[in-house]
Amino acid sequence: MPETRFSSPEASIAYMKEVAIERSGFSSWLGVEPIKVWQGESELLLSMRDELTQHHGFAHGAIVGLMADNACAWAAASAVGDVVTGSYSINFLAPAIGTALRAKGTVIKAGKRQVVVRADVWSEDAEGTAKLVASAQGTIIPTGKVELPR
Amino acid sequence: MPETRFSSPEASIAYMKEVAIERSGFSSWLGVEPIKVWQGESELLLSMRDELTQHHGFAHGAIVGLMADNACAWAAASAVGDVVTGSYSINFLAPAIGTALRAKGTVIKAGKRQVVVRADVWSEDAEGTAKLVASAQGTIIPTGKVELPR
Amino acid sequence: MPETRFSSPEASIAYMKEVAIERSGFSSWLGVEPIKVWQGESELLLSMRDELTQHHGFAHGAIVGLMADNACAWAAASAVGDVVTGSYSINFLAPAIGTALRAKGTVIKAGKRQVVVRADVWSEDAEGTAKLVASAQGTIIPTGKVELPR
Amino acid sequence: MPETRFSSPEASIAYMKEVAIERSGFSSWLGVEPIKVWQGESELLLSMRDELTQHHGFAHGAIVGLMADNACAWAAASAVGDVVTGSYSINFLAPAIGTALRAKGTVIKAGKRQVVVRADVWSEDAEGTAKLVASAQGTIIPTGKVELPR
Repeated sequence: MPETRFSSPEASIAYMKEVAIERSGFSSWLGVEPIKVWQGESELLLSMRDELTQHHGFAHGAIVGLMADNACAWAAASAVGDVVTGSYSINFLAPAIGTALRAKGTVIKAGKRQVVVRADVWSEDAEGTAKLVASAQGTIIPTGKVELPR
Repeated sequence: MPETRFSSPEASIAYMKEVAIERSGFSSWLGVEPIKVWQGESELLLSMRDELTQHHGFAHGAIVGLMADNACAWAAASAVGDVVTGSYSINFLAPAIGTALRAKGTVIKAGKRQVVVRADVWSEDAEGTAKLVASAQGTIIPTGKVELPR
Repeated sequence: MPETRFSSPEASIAYMKEVAIERSGFSSWLGVEPIKVWQGESELLLSMRDELTQHHGFAHGAIVGLMADNACAWAAASAVGDVVTGSYSINFLAPAIGTALRAKGTVIKAGKRQVVVRADVWSEDAEGTAKLVASAQGTIIPTGKVELPR
Repeated sequence: MPETRFSSPEASIAYMKEVAIERSGFSSWLGVEPIKVWQGESELLLSMRDELTQHHGFAHGAIVGLMADNACAWAAASAVGDVVTGSYSINFLAPAIGTALRAKGTVIKAGKRQVVVRADVWSEDAEGTAKLVASAQGTIIPTGKVELPR
């Protein structure tokens, strides 16, 4: 299990909200909610709304891609501190129809120069039924700046 | 050179605005502007604003990713009609600092079952100086529904 | 669980040996051994030898890549029949030092037009200790020719 | 244009033959020939033979993948010295039928921590007609050990 940079699961959530979301104009507008950012694993949730759709009414691929990218970056951040995304590959598996998107990321290997992470994204309907809509693999790069939560 | 599904360069732009942008809640909100969607090549432009930033104030990776994905999809659409993104890989090369993002896509191979496209994304400053910020390779899937512009 | 194209686990192994290995000059030369090709999952083993190394004496990246690619293709073939690799992304995680390479693939989604698969490759030493050396995600394309084993 | 680590185009070819090929059991067995390894660009050639085929008689995907990977790594090495492959994504575009494979790589961005490279692979027939069979994008990691040719 990767080590963690946070003092507790709650501290990591507070940190992600303050740093990765509130300071980011785009993440604030989106309203991504961190559920878990702990010991190399991440989970995040996003409520769907009309502004997030593509021309068939599904969640836009960029929004699905964002969920995968964020899941990779947050899982990596939980293990190594401040990070930037180096690269990722994503496969879209099904139209993202539903009321919410949920993503989970898991660190495969946390190295000094790069952290490799896998992430999956599901769409959920009002009853909570989940459908896998995308799978990704990302290479996340530690910046070396480990800002710890206060 | 791939064949095109549009009657003229102008018709393709009108079609992208009407179908891919105005019918998409997210693309409308973003304000992506199609510059070229013709014969396997695409170019699109996006003005930066605070709502599109990550926590360091640069363009959010999801926005850069969207530009790359759109450039791939639109280049493919210019050759084969209606498409969905199957998968893509993207490398982030530099922070996207500036007043606009520009993306260009070029079809490498347009097959019946998949269209392979390369795309690059640049950030531009107020003087128009461009910096390459991301490079991507996408697999775009024709839906078989070739909606031609009226 | 994906359906399978084979009548039994043993039939699938016999088929892979006869078709994918013996008819392939490269796979025959390599000596890849199919361990499992069943219901969307694959496992394969390769004994290391000097001819398979790169200039530091580790397994050559192309050999590690082949194990990942084969694991993806064979897992897909177990679910949908004859396939070709459309694309894959691979992350190399550690030098492949040891006496054997083992790869496992798992189908994430088997569609009509593409099968998305994840695969991992481990190096093993003489004591059987395994180290994860690469992780991949592949898009495998059914050819439509479902050759069933006799 | 990236700087180069070699004193001349001829020195770089001599170096690749001595280090990357002769010291590698697999590359020696294959017989890959370096044509160009200079200023962020690479070109390499491989004569086809029965031992390099898959079960339809075409060049095996692992061999095509190796050509793409080598083209990425060698292009990067020409700019930054000793490298290892971090990751790559490859799209297979057509069956690799013919008497030779040729690959070319071009550095997109040479950074301190990673070098991003694009590569293409062509199959050539006896008349020298070339067909694009694969396109790749790789992330190559400098080891920091810059062995210069003697």
